[in-house]
Amino acid sequence: MEPPYDTNKLNRLMDKAGIDLILAHTPHNIRYLTGGYYFHFRERITAIGPSQYLPFVGIPKGDTTRAFQVAWLVEACPYNKIEDWIPDIVHTKARGTVGAAQIAAKAIRNRGLTKATIGIERAFMPADAMDMLRKELPEAHFVESFNTLEELRIIKRPNEIEIFRRAGQADAEAIQEGFLLGPKDVTTERIARTVEGGMVKRGLHFHYVFTAAGPSMRRDPSEKIWKPGEILHIDAGGSQMGYMADICRMGSRGKPSPLADELHKACLHVLNKTRAAMEPGVACGTIYRIGQAALEETGYAESGIFDIHGIGMVQQELPRFNLDEERPLESGMIVSLENDIRYPEIGFVKIEDAVAIVKGGCEGLGDLGRDIWGCLD
Amino acid sequence: MEPPYDTNKLNRLMDKAGIDLILAHTPHNIRYLTGGYYFHFRERITAIGPSQYLPFVGIPKGDTTRAFQVAWLVEACPYNKIEDWIPDIVHTKARGTVGAAQIAAKAIRNRGLTKATIGIERAFMPADAMDMLRKELPEAHFVESFNTLEELRIIKRPNEIEIFRRAGQADAEAIQEGFLLGPKDVTTERIARTVEGGMVKRGLHFHYVFTAAGPSMRRDPSEKIWKPGEILHIDAGGSQMGYMADICRMGSRGKPSPLADELHKACLHVLNKTRAAMEPGVACGTIYRIGQAALEETGYAESGIFDIHGIGMVQQELPRFNLDEERPLESGMIVSLENDIRYPEIGFVKIEDAVAIVKGGCEGLGDLGRDIWGCLD
Repeated sequence: MEPPYDTNKLNRLMDKAGIDLILAHTPHNIRYLTGGYYFHFRERITAIGPSQYLPFVGIPKGDTTRAFQVAWLVEACPYNKIEDWIPDIVHTKARGTVGAAQIAAKAIRNRGLTKATIGIERAFMPADAMDMLRKELPEAHFVESFNTLEELRIIKRPNEIEIFRRAGQADAEAIQEGFLLGPKDVTTERIARTVEGGMVKRGLHFHYVFTAAGPSMRRDPSEKIWKPGEILHIDAGGSQMGYMADICRMGSRGKPSPLADELHKACLHVLNKTRAAMEPGVACGTIYRIGQAALEETGYAESGIFDIHGIGMVQQELPRFNLDEERPLESGMIVSLENDIRYPEIGFVKIEDAVAIVKGGCEGLGDLGRDIWGCLD
Repeated sequence: MEPPYDTNKLNRLMDKAGIDLILAHTPHNIRYLTGGYYFHFRERITAIGPSQYLPFVGIPKGDTTRAFQVAWLVEACPYNKIEDWIPDIVHTKARGTVGAAQIAAKAIRNRGLTKATIGIERAFMPADAMDMLRKELPEAHFVESFNTLEELRIIKRPNEIEIFRRAGQADAEAIQEGFLLGPKDVTTERIARTVEGGMVKRGLHFHYVFTAAGPSMRRDPSEKIWKPGEILHIDAGGSQMGYMADICRMGSRGKPSPLADELHKACLHVLNKTRAAMEPGVACGTIYRIGQAALEETGYAESGIFDIHGIGMVQQELPRFNLDEERPLESGMIVSLENDIRYPEIGFVKIEDAVAIVKGGCEGLGDLGRDIWGCLD
């Protein structure tokens, strides 16, 4: 089996960063580098006994034949099947961070890389595992690999985009299921749990739901009842095979007030105008300025926030958008756009979309319900 | 509001460990110390942008009035409500590990604890946050707080036991829903997703499902079809308010063979005999030996594994069980018992229960389906 990622690109990025060996250990990068694998037992909760699950994937620059993976013994065949391209999978009886680090260090020594510059992800490396790596590899030099791996993931392949398409649609449908509870007096907690169930039914793993009902700016699901006459936003995230969906839609119990409707249309104006400008070759800074200008046009810029960022296996990843960002959009980038307006008498109005950059424009991923008010009853 | 945990016990444990300040940062300990709070947005996935969510709760020994909490700005009222007893909640704009550590260090300095012995959880502390704490508090002494906090949590209060009761029942019902698919040819992946949905419907957050169908020992959900004549185990875990349920039950498509039935009864024999001996005052070592002896009695000890461990907000926690463990069971402990027999022609037979230690014995938490074969059709 071939590595599923662009090996030449990784080599170039490692060259640029001066990294001899990538030692990946975050869920997103393990999945990306293996081609989809992560031990499902520890996907949503890492703690077990006195420590936590810590897998490793090691890739020496320019030589995938010497790549290795560190996994728990219970991940091994025949009990569980790791179907990936990595030639050397070391299973460890030690079910914790320090034991895993020790095994990884041994694999690195076995490859003669004791003096290598090793790329790790410091915001995710447990302190005790870090100490063990330093102890076992005293001559190695540890550097941050975040940028290298984020850059590697930025252009999504067609099979990845297909997952985003399905995940976005599932997320949007699950949100509408939440609004359907509206004709009755229900708590935002019950709405949140319905959205969670709606995701699971559609093959998404649930991550979170924010629910802002009525004029309150409080967004966490609670015992608050969504009352007649109140608007509600449902901002919900989930994932499929590690790829994130994150969408926000509006609902209203009864016909929304003219002002609520105007705020909703203002959010749509910002996102529609920005999306219309998005295509390969346009600089991210240009897109950012178009969105900001569109928000100004609505007259609600003071109460509004426009935000735009890449999304992938991490909720906010490349590309980045700010006034001066010269990087152009490229086909295969996935971008999340959000605009909210927080208006005391009305509530927290928010629309969030995701799009894939495609030839000549962008494709909405889960646009269902963006330009309507869910419920109305 | 009063701290929800036993403050005197924590003081005693901190004295014993020589800890001046508990600096907790794992999901389970944040929840436990705050009385149930954890930022729901980052509960199932911590990564965001270039870093990850890292909250802190700091408790100086003997003085809960100087306790503090470090949270993200978006967790603050009015957007989200933190309802806990901690007097000083510092919200940080920095959405990452290093910024959070810097704020925590400042809170510690503000309390005059620059030379304190600080209890942290090293298997969960990000390396970059650790470096920042060391830099900002060069005279502090950092020690492991795992044992202290695990010991603090060991005896569950009645309101905690009530959650385990509900969670266990919900988990057991969700598993039976998985078996109900059996009359049709379904994949173990579909069964797993049904169990996930069944948990969510019953107010459990999903963690994992293992599914071993037929003679294979492979346990991860896959495209493998549960065929007529095959047994299936469903071993599924979820949580409610951070409290874990973890149960395994057996199913069979069609009447199980006499040997499969015997293996099932053997597992039940081991667990029943062990459970019958469990009551306050009996040493954990005694219980462990009773379970091992019961497994020997079945004649399948060579293919079988008996395991027993505490369960709580972490899947394996105090009390621990081994041949020499003299610690006695106490009312309010929650214990998970599992016995499996791996038999090549038959498959992976396994029963896992959870019980609460109560006056004069133990109470099953989610016993539904343990002594029957799910499906049979």
